[in-house]
Amino acid sequence: MQNMIFSVDKLQKFTQEVFLKMGCSPEHAQQATQVLLSADLRGIDSHGVARLIGYVRLWEAERVNAQPDIKIVHETPSTATIDGDRGLGLVIAPYAMKIAIEKAKVAGTGWVAIKNSNHYGIAGYHSMMALEHDMMGISMTNASALVAPTFSQERMLGTNPIAVACPTNEEPPFVADFSTTTAANGKLEILQRKEEEAPIGWVQTKEGHPTEDAGILKKGGALLPLGSDRVHSSHKGYCLGSIVDIFSAVLSGANYGPWVPPFPSYVPLPENPVGEGVGHFVGAMRVDAFRPAEDYKNHMDNWIRRFRNSTPVEGQKKVLIPGDPERESEKLRRKEGIPLLEPVVKDLQSLADKFNLEF
Amino acid sequence: MQNMIFSVDKLQKFTQEVFLKMGCSPEHAQQATQVLLSADLRGIDSHGVARLIGYVRLWEAERVNAQPDIKIVHETPSTATIDGDRGLGLVIAPYAMKIAIEKAKVAGTGWVAIKNSNHYGIAGYHSMMALEHDMMGISMTNASALVAPTFSQERMLGTNPIAVACPTNEEPPFVADFSTTTAANGKLEILQRKEEEAPIGWVQTKEGHPTEDAGILKKGGALLPLGSDRVHSSHKGYCLGSIVDIFSAVLSGANYGPWVPPFPSYVPLPENPVGEGVGHFVGAMRVDAFRPAEDYKNHMDNWIRRFRNSTPVEGQKKVLIPGDPERESEKLRRKEGIPLLEPVVKDLQSLADKFNLEF
Repeated sequence: MQNMIFSVDKLQKFTQEVFLKMGCSPEHAQQATQVLLSADLRGIDSHGVARLIGYVRLWEAERVNAQPDIKIVHETPSTATIDGDRGLGLVIAPYAMKIAIEKAKVAGTGWVAIKNSNHYGIAGYHSMMALEHDMMGISMTNASALVAPTFSQERMLGTNPIAVACPTNEEPPFVADFSTTTAANGKLEILQRKEEEAPIGWVQTKEGHPTEDAGILKKGGALLPLGSDRVHSSHKGYCLGSIVDIFSAVLSGANYGPWVPPFPSYVPLPENPVGEGVGHFVGAMRVDAFRPAEDYKNHMDNWIRRFRNSTPVEGQKKVLIPGDPERESEKLRRKEGIPLLEPVVKDLQSLADKFNLEF
Repeated sequence: MQNMIFSVDKLQKFTQEVFLKMGCSPEHAQQATQVLLSADLRGIDSHGVARLIGYVRLWEAERVNAQPDIKIVHETPSTATIDGDRGLGLVIAPYAMKIAIEKAKVAGTGWVAIKNSNHYGIAGYHSMMALEHDMMGISMTNASALVAPTFSQERMLGTNPIAVACPTNEEPPFVADFSTTTAANGKLEILQRKEEEAPIGWVQTKEGHPTEDAGILKKGGALLPLGSDRVHSSHKGYCLGSIVDIFSAVLSGANYGPWVPPFPSYVPLPENPVGEGVGHFVGAMRVDAFRPAEDYKNHMDNWIRRFRNSTPVEGQKKVLIPGDPERESEKLRRKEGIPLLEPVVKDLQSLADKFNLEF
């Protein structure tokens, strides 16, 4: 499949116009665009403009409210709970993160649980908002159930990512952003396109047996938690995914487990919801709430340098630091543009036609 | 190897006497004993009285201060940093958790970073202290380097466990407590005793190659992060272990990465330390800082019931909830006593001889 290259500016302008056509305020359109584009820049293609049409379809299905009245429904000095009013997670999560940062300025840390939201893009974006304030940022979200817990046939958890960003002094920041599964959906889609098989340990059949079928999710199969199988500690990945689900939804009042609303608008909503919408959880910790910021940041530099300089195994140039691959991608794509696959370009073209926009 | 069964009371009394002989205050001796015994009760044999002799040796080597002056060196409304004065982590971590709980009562959440500590026992004990206050408890610690990051030959991280405890209403609490590696050291020791091989994906050789040698750590090999290899997302386990290291040590001013002091007293301390002692990080979040406690706890009950009732794969009776196996163990062992392996009994006997105690 061919890639076409687009300039960041062009994609940014177009994406923003689409959000405006949905009825988003200029401020919200800009924020949502920034989150999507940051995914494309960072090389997380599954979470960038490739999803724009999905958000539009959710809006058309009246599952996304383009003009949400986002508000705090509960708070303490270091916490808040946000009702996202069915808005775009792309807008609600940064709003919540700003509250976490403001709380941290006063209380040392700030923690915000979010209900009644939708898909929030890449977890990393929100955690990284803390960096410029010399804070550590934390972000996580639940998602519709595709993952089978250890010993389960049923899909009970989403890919439930966690992101943690840590400020530094001279080194680039530490940014870990990862799903709590062995492989996320996007990797299976790539294999299906190439007509290749999945490694054992990524997915299981409807009955819970190991399989190499990269298309097994469409046949009732499930993704596996980080760890793959019991022998390799899949129960730890199951714990992690569960923790994300509980922080994001049981704490906020959103849906959890198999009740989390799906991203594709054609998939029916789960019956008898146990909460409102998708849930997220974000946090900010002032590093100088623990020790002088310069000490922390200098030691982060030292941490990064020591790990980067550890002896690599044969055939590898160096040991990577969380955030390195995404930073490399961003450097390249800011210069050379963002490559999009043909089906993504077609989707964007169809959005241009729908909204009478130029693409 | 034969097991001998001991009553909880007898082990408790003996362990407490050993800590008193080390010079611990009665209060500290009781606290340290409680943490060790909770590991034996919960079936985490590697972290119970089997380690008592190790703590005594650290004290003999003057690496543990039995009469520490534990104090807060920095704080904000929701945070504190503790200097453990080289005391037992078994005493320092519960002390820090109490501060986190007190902070949470006022600020909604409380977060405490700890430096200048030692091995703190099972992570789960500290997180569970929050439960009776209707709080979620979080606990993590770094440990001496046995784990090779993805692409690294060198051991750079400890098994760095994370524990999260969530209060419930009618169901028993959710308690996840797990190392961020595919397998922890204890499992390898069991295989070595049985002269069995380790599954591929648990360990690597000194050169970074896959191996089934359960004794490879003694030959310069390394444990692998949760995920095992790059194809199965070991980089996510590497991220997790790194996050625990940074929260525990870069935030607190303890040693991190390859500088973390070892548990065995005969292993030399790493040169040129970058901080003080071992580091931990604990936190407590009042659930009613986010929503009414009854709502949260009822939804936790519902979460647990739904997951417990998910359809198991063939050959499995049911899907487990984090904390189930440990709870089963505790029920059984409170009734039938705690089984100890012969070498552990010998170690305890040698402690009895050393301190003129009855065992």
